Amino acid sequence: MVTTALIGLDWGTSSLRAYRVDAGGGVIERKSARAGIMQIEGGDFEGALEREVGAWLDAAPGVPVLASGMIASRQGWVEAPYVACPAGVGELAGSMLTHVTARGRRIRFVPGLSFLAEDGVPDVIRGEETQILGEVGQDEDARLLVLPGTHSKWAVAAGGRIEGFSTFMTGELFAVLKQHSILGRLMQDDRDDAAAFAQGLSYAGGAGSGLLKRLFSARTLGLFDRLPASGIASYLSGLLIGTEIEEALAWTRGRRTVGEVTVIGALQLAERYRGALEAKGRPARRAADDIVARGLFRIAHAGGLLP
Amino acid sequence: MVTTALIGLDWGTSSLRAYRVDAGGGVIERKSARAGIMQIEGGDFEGALEREVGAWLDAAPGVPVLASGMIASRQGWVEAPYVACPAGVGELAGSMLTHVTARGRRIRFVPGLSFLAEDGVPDVIRGEETQILGEVGQDEDARLLVLPGTHSKWAVAAGGRIEGFSTFMTGELFAVLKQHSILGRLMQDDRDDAAAFAQGLSYAGGAGSGLLKRLFSARTLGLFDRLPASGIASYLSGLLIGTEIEEALAWTRGRRTVGEVTVIGALQLAERYRGALEAKGRPARRAADDIVARGLFRIAHAGGLLP
Repeated sequence: MVTTALIGLDWGTSSLRAYRVDAGGGVIERKSARAGIMQIEGGDFEGALEREVGAWLDAAPGVPVLASGMIASRQGWVEAPYVACPAGVGELAGSMLTHVTARGRRIRFVPGLSFLAEDGVPDVIRGEETQILGEVGQDEDARLLVLPGTHSKWAVAAGGRIEGFSTFMTGELFAVLKQHSILGRLMQDDRDDAAAFAQGLSYAGGAGSGLLKRLFSARTLGLFDRLPASGIASYLSGLLIGTEIEEALAWTRGRRTVGEVTVIGALQLAERYRGALEAKGRPARRAADDIVARGLFRIAHAGGLLP
Repeated sequence: MVTTALIGLDWGTSSLRAYRVDAGGGVIERKSARAGIMQIEGGDFEGALEREVGAWLDAAPGVPVLASGMIASRQGWVEAPYVACPAGVGELAGSMLTHVTARGRRIRFVPGLSFLAEDGVPDVIRGEETQILGEVGQDEDARLLVLPGTHSKWAVAAGGRIEGFSTFMTGELFAVLKQHSILGRLMQDDRDDAAAFAQGLSYAGGAGSGLLKRLFSARTLGLFDRLPASGIASYLSGLLIGTEIEEALAWTRGRRTVGEVTVIGALQLAERYRGALEAKGRPARRAADDIVARGLFRIAHAGGLLP
């Protein structure tokens, strides 16, 4: 049996992903549970930890345990203050917060990052920084990465450090419009409609107006029989994702980045973004799974926790 | 007693406003009821009509009755097809739909307008066209008007005709974000916070990114103690209204308009828009109340219904 060198936890709002990692950084075993911080009753994080990975911890006493994500936020187990960008694995390792559980387990919490953008407005990430640092190499030129989701994160990384990032409320906006707006009430028999998605995508961005105006097209195109009710959801998705891409590329203007845009995320959503980026003229590729385990391994290594 | 020359109805989704109008177009009497088409049980529009203005109708038999607004939509009493822009009172009068009620009342329904924008996407208004045509004169140069609300409408009118318009989902977006998003959950003890409104307004628009990114500032500014929880709602309102103004002005670029922007709406919201426009460098003024009655009068006149 391969020896465990590190137990890594990617512990977010809606799920816990856990990894047993070997001395070379390879994943020996992984598990995923719907044990995100919002699903844990009464804040019993220790109970959840024992339930999900207690056996791993028992089998590998003394092995470092690192946790990244919202578990280290005000709503989580401990609050690790944000570290300012630019930052790499060294800064994150140097600012980890250690907590010893009632059972005597020592858990190290990776902090999130803050970034004060050129426009003077702050932004934050928590969990995505570890994924990004599992993906980018130490000696790389500046790259652009995106982590799509409820709150999509775009980041520029160079030389193994995250230089800046930006958050877009795309997924959440889609959800509230679908569930609670007139656009949602017009949707019927939703299906994955590639043509409607492309139609929304191509209407996003460009000069002449913006999203607040364009949203209403999801109503009027149906009124004039140019969009089926079953395609409104796909159309809205395309319009929002297209707007996000246009805004993100506007945000990166002036930052030189090379090569493809890297999309980090679950297969279906990542593929949707990859296709949308390609349609907007930006080559893209999807990152490997489990890069968060590699990120945690690198942070542990930078912190001198590995042999 | 002044003789009634016209009974005008501005009958929308959430309210019915009714006017007794004299032969000179002046309002003799007005009433307002929460009898919008969404509040009328079982589609009993005739019952609502009799309840709200039956006495007026009895007292002025044979007087023309005109109704504008969502009452003439698919969800309303009769569906009057949209008339294409550019259009003025003549086109609207020529496309009215007449309906005789069970009691023998003759009601004329004013159609809404459609507009195929330069970007090829259609837009519609229903009710606002009558307000606008009550406000603008026949011999005027091109003017810019805004009707703020759930779905804000911006229009360009010249020579007494509406040349084009554009819809912005500002009010609805504010409502769904406040009620259903993480931004709403962060709001506490909302108060009307002028400084927070101005802060949101000034962050709206301009180069470098867009609304999807800027929305998240309503979360992060609070996280860094630069916005009180009680001011998040005002901040979000400023950010959305500012974005609407920037998008609308981008939309009108290339259309020459003269003078102040005219804001049509209830006092408080109209004043908020007027102030926001002035802050963005566009002088603005609020239109008089009851312009919808004047619009209905002009349409009736154009239709040869008045002596």
